[in-house]
Amino acid sequence: MASADRLKKELELFRTRSALLADLYGAAAVLGWDQQTYMPAAGNSHRASQAAALSGIVHEKMVDPAYGDSIAFLQDNADRLSAEDRAAVRVAARDRDRAVRLPARLVEDLTHAEAEGLAAWQEARSGDDFSVFQPFLERTLQLQREKAETLGYTGHPWDALHDEFEPGSTAAAVRDVFTPLGEFTVRLLERIRNSGHEADDSLLERPYDEELQEQFGREVASQFGFDFLRGRLDRAAHPFATGFGPDDVRITTRYDRNFLSTAIFGIFHEAGHGIYEQGLDPDQARSPLGQAVSLAVHESQSRLWENLIGRSASFWEFAWPRLSELFPDALGSVSRTEFHRAVNTVRPGLIRVEADEVTYNLHIMIRFELELALLEGTLEPAGLPAAWNELYRERLGLDPSDDADGCLQDVHWSLGLFGYFPTYALGNLMSVQLLHAHERDNPGLWDQVRTGDFSRLLDWLNTNVHRHGSMFTPAELLRNATGSDLDAGPYTDYLENKYGRLYGLTESGND
Amino acid sequence: MASADRLKKELELFRTRSALLADLYGAAAVLGWDQQTYMPAAGNSHRASQAAALSGIVHEKMVDPAYGDSIAFLQDNADRLSAEDRAAVRVAARDRDRAVRLPARLVEDLTHAEAEGLAAWQEARSGDDFSVFQPFLERTLQLQREKAETLGYTGHPWDALHDEFEPGSTAAAVRDVFTPLGEFTVRLLERIRNSGHEADDSLLERPYDEELQEQFGREVASQFGFDFLRGRLDRAAHPFATGFGPDDVRITTRYDRNFLSTAIFGIFHEAGHGIYEQGLDPDQARSPLGQAVSLAVHESQSRLWENLIGRSASFWEFAWPRLSELFPDALGSVSRTEFHRAVNTVRPGLIRVEADEVTYNLHIMIRFELELALLEGTLEPAGLPAAWNELYRERLGLDPSDDADGCLQDVHWSLGLFGYFPTYALGNLMSVQLLHAHERDNPGLWDQVRTGDFSRLLDWLNTNVHRHGSMFTPAELLRNATGSDLDAGPYTDYLENKYGRLYGLTESGND
Repeated sequence: MASADRLKKELELFRTRSALLADLYGAAAVLGWDQQTYMPAAGNSHRASQAAALSGIVHEKMVDPAYGDSIAFLQDNADRLSAEDRAAVRVAARDRDRAVRLPARLVEDLTHAEAEGLAAWQEARSGDDFSVFQPFLERTLQLQREKAETLGYTGHPWDALHDEFEPGSTAAAVRDVFTPLGEFTVRLLERIRNSGHEADDSLLERPYDEELQEQFGREVASQFGFDFLRGRLDRAAHPFATGFGPDDVRITTRYDRNFLSTAIFGIFHEAGHGIYEQGLDPDQARSPLGQAVSLAVHESQSRLWENLIGRSASFWEFAWPRLSELFPDALGSVSRTEFHRAVNTVRPGLIRVEADEVTYNLHIMIRFELELALLEGTLEPAGLPAAWNELYRERLGLDPSDDADGCLQDVHWSLGLFGYFPTYALGNLMSVQLLHAHERDNPGLWDQVRTGDFSRLLDWLNTNVHRHGSMFTPAELLRNATGSDLDAGPYTDYLENKYGRLYGLTESGND
Repeated sequence: MASADRLKKELELFRTRSALLADLYGAAAVLGWDQQTYMPAAGNSHRASQAAALSGIVHEKMVDPAYGDSIAFLQDNADRLSAEDRAAVRVAARDRDRAVRLPARLVEDLTHAEAEGLAAWQEARSGDDFSVFQPFLERTLQLQREKAETLGYTGHPWDALHDEFEPGSTAAAVRDVFTPLGEFTVRLLERIRNSGHEADDSLLERPYDEELQEQFGREVASQFGFDFLRGRLDRAAHPFATGFGPDDVRITTRYDRNFLSTAIFGIFHEAGHGIYEQGLDPDQARSPLGQAVSLAVHESQSRLWENLIGRSASFWEFAWPRLSELFPDALGSVSRTEFHRAVNTVRPGLIRVEADEVTYNLHIMIRFELELALLEGTLEPAGLPAAWNELYRERLGLDPSDDADGCLQDVHWSLGLFGYFPTYALGNLMSVQLLHAHERDNPGLWDQVRTGDFSRLLDWLNTNVHRHGSMFTPAELLRNATGSDLDAGPYTDYLENKYGRLYGLTESGND
């Protein structure tokens, strides 16, 4: 075949197959969304079979040698491809390589261990009995080590697992930003503790009508830029966001009628994820480029809207009149300043998902250190509770009263998700780097926020982050958008300025 | 390979593949349900790709020669199989045979014509302009004729199309029951018209709170036997029921706040479909036997609960106190007898989906005759509106004012659904045959209905219909359950007795 014809043919095969895979991912995501929102509990067994059928088909289509041959040919002829096609082939090759490397036996064992691990974790957590989970953690670790060896790595075995969630990132790179971040945070917490300010966010723990919480959340999500014509907000026990393509993005939340923050900051957070998914390039919807690039970049978007905007004084200048109008009983005697202080209360706690902006990253760093040690074998699973409690004492000054609120609090490890936790904190760091870069282009940002005008910010994020999908690596994306590599400095500066002011801290920890 | 080993191997391959297909059907059904309930309209294009991807995979797995070889081997060794395996192979062979016969080019043309036909029909209907739809109807008919020739038939080409919905049924068989049914119905209508009774169901057209309509519908559906722990009720513009397996069955309805019947009889109807789906044998959930056997049998279940039970005087003895308690404003001055008469008003109308028990089948018979003529070519598409109007004049004494409420009222033909309409009327006939058979076993039925006890009826339907799934053909199922073949007599007797009494008809038309 003439070389141009061959290129055309291989590109055609590549595009058709990767579009099919994208469609199947979308279908699987619909099943997952339904499972967590509307499916009756009894439907779980049918749904597990249906999801497994889709996974099996995806695997089959992915490892198909014909697809591999096309990818190899296109990689060999990369100089003849457009930049988009080249990037699409890179992303597809990476996904396929992982799928091909993992033998079917290992995939089955992992799936099996996941189902058993989840059940054991649920039982262990509800009965506060780590010993129930321990053998499953041992088995999962063994499989995760095997997975890491099979996938390959140059630094730490953890890198092979982490790379699935954060392409190109490594334990060494994470440690480089976590070390200064951890030192700064522990010092900042100490200064806050010594500031004499009493944390008081009791005004958030009053009766708030759920319908009105939802109404407020919807109004703000819309205002931020979440398009309800191309998405939905529903309820879920464990809130999440998912996209079936940029024109159909689903976000979820839960409501606590006696605690305002759960739903409203939850909605801001998921709206941030949703806005990212809606901002993906529709022309790439069925290409490997049409997916969000990494978990940390995703989290940078949710955290930006939830925290950097949603907990800012400027935002509440805009939103306070509406909120206090909706909840006259709960908020009638509260001032905007009191409310803003309440939603920015810093208080070390045992539970990650309830943590504030300052302490949150400490929860992540503890998990990061522990999972490295567990994978290395320097920490035995049996020693996890004691090691966990020791770190909480050292970093947060707290003593977990039990394992249910200690090392059993998160579902991740039961599902074999190692290398995942740090993406939450990396997202926090990136969120400030991105917002600072935007402020250089748009110095009037906070004046706009005060009037509820988020259009320039949204446009900048779309141009610099969302629409690129997986065109660039996370590191390239961050560098293109901000001019910098991943860096903890902007985040610590942000904390210093914000909490220095809120807690009247005299000594600057900004170094 | 030793023969026993070969049998074992082929059975294993057969079961694995048919289970995979069942899982993929389930996944596709989830996508379809979401599309009609919660999907934002903008998501349609993504959803079309996802659904097409699943259809493509189903087709690929279905026509795979290895699956065909297994089926052929098992058919050749049918005497060595259990009755269940033999039936499963029969059903799978039938499904596969249809898939294999249709060439990919024809399937593509049909899919294409369906999408274009639907859009043209929507435009034609909203603009009341048949000429917009006519060329698409011509194209669809041409493809349906080609499909019929490809699939093969012995009697009428219509049989090949109808067989997909009603295995084993034919135009000749349908005509055999439609002829006496039609003659009886036209005569009964004439007698009702001459009875001097004025139809008055205006009490149904009052304001009825939607939430309370839903509450009442849920209560009755539960009482009938729909299990909300294994199913859901949601809203949809075009109500339907669908099952992803017996433990996850979704029914839908729509509400009209100024017309009570839409939602409540709609919920009874869909609950009947849902109860059938929930009653399928869970042990066969992933086998070809685990699906409902035909559209007519399905409709017999929805109609039985909607009409035979739901519009009976005995049922309203049970349900009236609750309904009148929920709607004191609308029903405070209405008696149970007046209400029962209102929900059994016979009034010839132009619209099939609004028709009563007496006239409904006439709408179906008109469509049956027309689609036979269209397929034969004895009626040209251009002549459809005139032929339609002529039949409505002749059978129902009505003159369609326009085509939107005439031959453009139903979506079916635009989607290439020929051979489908009669299953609605066949379901009506079967519903009475089944209920009469049940009454022979359970003479106290109506006393039970009067107290809201549907347990013996439900149990009988489950034992005689639901749990068999596709183990028997529809004709076998009906014969096993009732001792009779399909027969219009019980239905005409039912109408004669019920409406003779309601309309005080002196002359018996019961022959």
